[in-house]
Amino acid sequence: MFSDMKIRDNKFVYIQLKDYIKSMILKGLLRADEKLPSSREMASMLNISRNTVMYAYEFLQDEGFVYIKRGKGTFVSDVKVNTQGKWNIDWEDEINEYGRLSEKLDIIKHETKWKSGMISFKSIAPDENLFNIEEFKKSFLNRMSIEGKKILNYGYAQGYKFLIEYLLKYMENKGVNTSGKDIIITNGFTEGFDLVLSCLTNRGDNILCENPTHNTAIKIMKLHGLNIKGVQIGKEGVDLNELKEKLKEGKFKISYFIPSYHNPTGIVMSPENRAKLYNILKGYNIPIIEDGFNEELRYSGAHVLPIAAIAGKGNSVIYVGSFSKVLFPGIRIGWILSDKVLTGYLESVKRARNIHTSSLDQAIFYDYLQSGDFNKYIKKARRIYREKYEFALKCAKNYIPNREILGEGGMHIFIKLKDINSRQLLEKCCERNVIFTPGDIFYVDDKGQDTLRLGFSRVSREDIKKGFSIIGEEAKKLGGI
Amino acid sequence: MFSDMKIRDNKFVYIQLKDYIKSMILKGLLRADEKLPSSREMASMLNISRNTVMYAYEFLQDEGFVYIKRGKGTFVSDVKVNTQGKWNIDWEDEINEYGRLSEKLDIIKHETKWKSGMISFKSIAPDENLFNIEEFKKSFLNRMSIEGKKILNYGYAQGYKFLIEYLLKYMENKGVNTSGKDIIITNGFTEGFDLVLSCLTNRGDNILCENPTHNTAIKIMKLHGLNIKGVQIGKEGVDLNELKEKLKEGKFKISYFIPSYHNPTGIVMSPENRAKLYNILKGYNIPIIEDGFNEELRYSGAHVLPIAAIAGKGNSVIYVGSFSKVLFPGIRIGWILSDKVLTGYLESVKRARNIHTSSLDQAIFYDYLQSGDFNKYIKKARRIYREKYEFALKCAKNYIPNREILGEGGMHIFIKLKDINSRQLLEKCCERNVIFTPGDIFYVDDKGQDTLRLGFSRVSREDIKKGFSIIGEEAKKLGGI
Repeated sequence: MFSDMKIRDNKFVYIQLKDYIKSMILKGLLRADEKLPSSREMASMLNISRNTVMYAYEFLQDEGFVYIKRGKGTFVSDVKVNTQGKWNIDWEDEINEYGRLSEKLDIIKHETKWKSGMISFKSIAPDENLFNIEEFKKSFLNRMSIEGKKILNYGYAQGYKFLIEYLLKYMENKGVNTSGKDIIITNGFTEGFDLVLSCLTNRGDNILCENPTHNTAIKIMKLHGLNIKGVQIGKEGVDLNELKEKLKEGKFKISYFIPSYHNPTGIVMSPENRAKLYNILKGYNIPIIEDGFNEELRYSGAHVLPIAAIAGKGNSVIYVGSFSKVLFPGIRIGWILSDKVLTGYLESVKRARNIHTSSLDQAIFYDYLQSGDFNKYIKKARRIYREKYEFALKCAKNYIPNREILGEGGMHIFIKLKDINSRQLLEKCCERNVIFTPGDIFYVDDKGQDTLRLGFSRVSREDIKKGFSIIGEEAKKLGGI
Repeated sequence: MFSDMKIRDNKFVYIQLKDYIKSMILKGLLRADEKLPSSREMASMLNISRNTVMYAYEFLQDEGFVYIKRGKGTFVSDVKVNTQGKWNIDWEDEINEYGRLSEKLDIIKHETKWKSGMISFKSIAPDENLFNIEEFKKSFLNRMSIEGKKILNYGYAQGYKFLIEYLLKYMENKGVNTSGKDIIITNGFTEGFDLVLSCLTNRGDNILCENPTHNTAIKIMKLHGLNIKGVQIGKEGVDLNELKEKLKEGKFKISYFIPSYHNPTGIVMSPENRAKLYNILKGYNIPIIEDGFNEELRYSGAHVLPIAAIAGKGNSVIYVGSFSKVLFPGIRIGWILSDKVLTGYLESVKRARNIHTSSLDQAIFYDYLQSGDFNKYIKKARRIYREKYEFALKCAKNYIPNREILGEGGMHIFIKLKDINSRQLLEKCCERNVIFTPGDIFYVDDKGQDTLRLGFSRVSREDIKKGFSIIGEEAKKLGGI
């Protein structure tokens, strides 16, 4: 019986033996009060050391699976493995409306999946080959040596103090007046946006945003039961005339904008329009949630203040920032800069949701930021993504016919094909192992059927060229060109 | 003007210079098209190298704060710093009911705060001095060298594959039949419990639990608008007769229990009662959320199966586990084991909330668990907390009069004082620099005014003795003994 045990190389043998005996007890193959082989017998049977067996028996005793009778040996405890009659619940029936809607709006579950060998333009995640792992390790080891034990125990809901201080300075460096404001650290933009809506909105409230807009934001707004009113976006950002019209339609609780390298269009709202937008919303007293999306990636040219900076001493802008768009999204660090009173409430909601964001991750990020490694990284990343953007733009112009290309940068290109349904195009391209994101998922109405987003950050130049030319060929066929 | 800049030692000088010039531009102290000193002049003014200045200027150019005219020098860009008229929102008025309730139920904000020099029995966090930082570092470096770049980019909502596989085995080792079930990784128990309620319950639903129970769970149940029906807990766990009575009172959507070292009482539900509880709830078809709280800490004695194991092949138990109670709570790793269909919905809700739990933290934890370091740690931790528990129990018996002590282990002692109000007692003790958690916060009704929880995990033996004797003295005065 025991000799059936297969010892594997990659795990401590005492753990393997312990787990093996445990599983036999749990399966009822070893009965209560049955005597186990002596450590000597077991050791010789398995060809392992006697110490290993004794160590395994000691753990089993600790965990209550065996007991030792002095001078008599080791015996199986009565662990009462009798399970009760099968009781099954049809969980499909138990899910509430929120759960169902979450699943329905879960794009990852319902969109075309990547398969090996495909060229995928779906992702707008940063290229991990640009990450400098050595610098990241250095930051980890540095924080560990300074305050490792502290970081590994519970922290504060608002976040890791040094990171908050750093980010306050960082926002001041963007021109934001931080007096009367504070920062809370979140698990990325997604949590930040969800916390803000959780704290401020009620089902049925109206919310104003660009159309198209970030699909995760659309999902979260829908999950909060909000009425989403989208305003068309043009080359200078949101259409201010349409905005004024929309504002007459009803009372708005809040608004949401992505002024820099807007997702999905890549449009940068001009400084003039930022100020105008601010003043229009001021007139109606509608607070602004500003999504700092890709702001870190902005290439040279004129510096553009975030809307939060235009607000000066005013407290009407809630800025949600995240580094995940450019660096280490796997560690999930974002932040909300807002009025102190609001931050206090956000802190309580955050604590009720998950206590706090990993202190380890916050501490490493802080170290990485303040060491200057981030500055070096962002300089490199900006240059590389800029070059890649220009290359992708050229390919798009060369290969994809009959199109309008919006935006001026970022990690993706947004194309209007005109008269071609992008889901039909996707189906055709998919047959040729090329996939992308159909643009309709970014629209808050039923529009955008003729648009697509092409993320290129993790695709090689060779594949960009190849993939775009396939998209172009299939578009030509569909468009009858 | 530039010579006012103070150069600090702990930061790269080019970053300091860049930030200094940036802030002068943002403050309007440097005007558009103004010429900056040449790199040579600036270097000599600040007594730094010319390269440093050139590097800072290069960054400023990248970020759009300056422009360079060939052969003429470096000039300030027009960054349009004009902020708009002040617009303030009274955020206090904007917070919704959920935000307000979160704040109101936020114990951290409203309970007595620790001050330097106090002996605090409030925490039941693990003692970080038991953490082995070297082994943790080893796990980090190991994962980094194997798949560092991958871990730092986006991961999956369900969690890090290797950790999920490990935990499925881990649950099987507890006697749980995992067929037809799956695991999702969460940011600790708090998020796990919140996700489950988010997915299954509607406002106004009835939920059944022990009374008293985990105060964070009470908060989350209240935030979900549930009607909480508490069943008294005795030495063998929840009172089954009272449970049967309660079940007649209405329809229950779900139930929540902490069978091992129950928080706050420290009671372990007997194997017989676990089976009985399971069968009673089966009769009414009320699913069970089992809180694995402190199960990892269970000291020797008979092994007790979790309720999830009693269910055998049945899918009616949702097990929410967390290592945060014993190890590295700062990195926030928990998990939910449940029916596969339910896991699918939980995954979509998790994705909508924060995309996924830090892949870095999951990967380190996985490495730490599978290396055997966790086994070694838990053996040590069990012994140390057991000894400490026994010491604290002895002190409580010696010093605190007129009391009933519940439970049999864990990191805290729960005391019923009888006829003494624990908040009055806290006030008196606080004057003598001793604080603890008044027990009423764990009750779902208005009971427990005469109870208190004493967490000892992070308190030295000397302070346990001293603190308990002060509590005893003050209790005697209040009780007139």
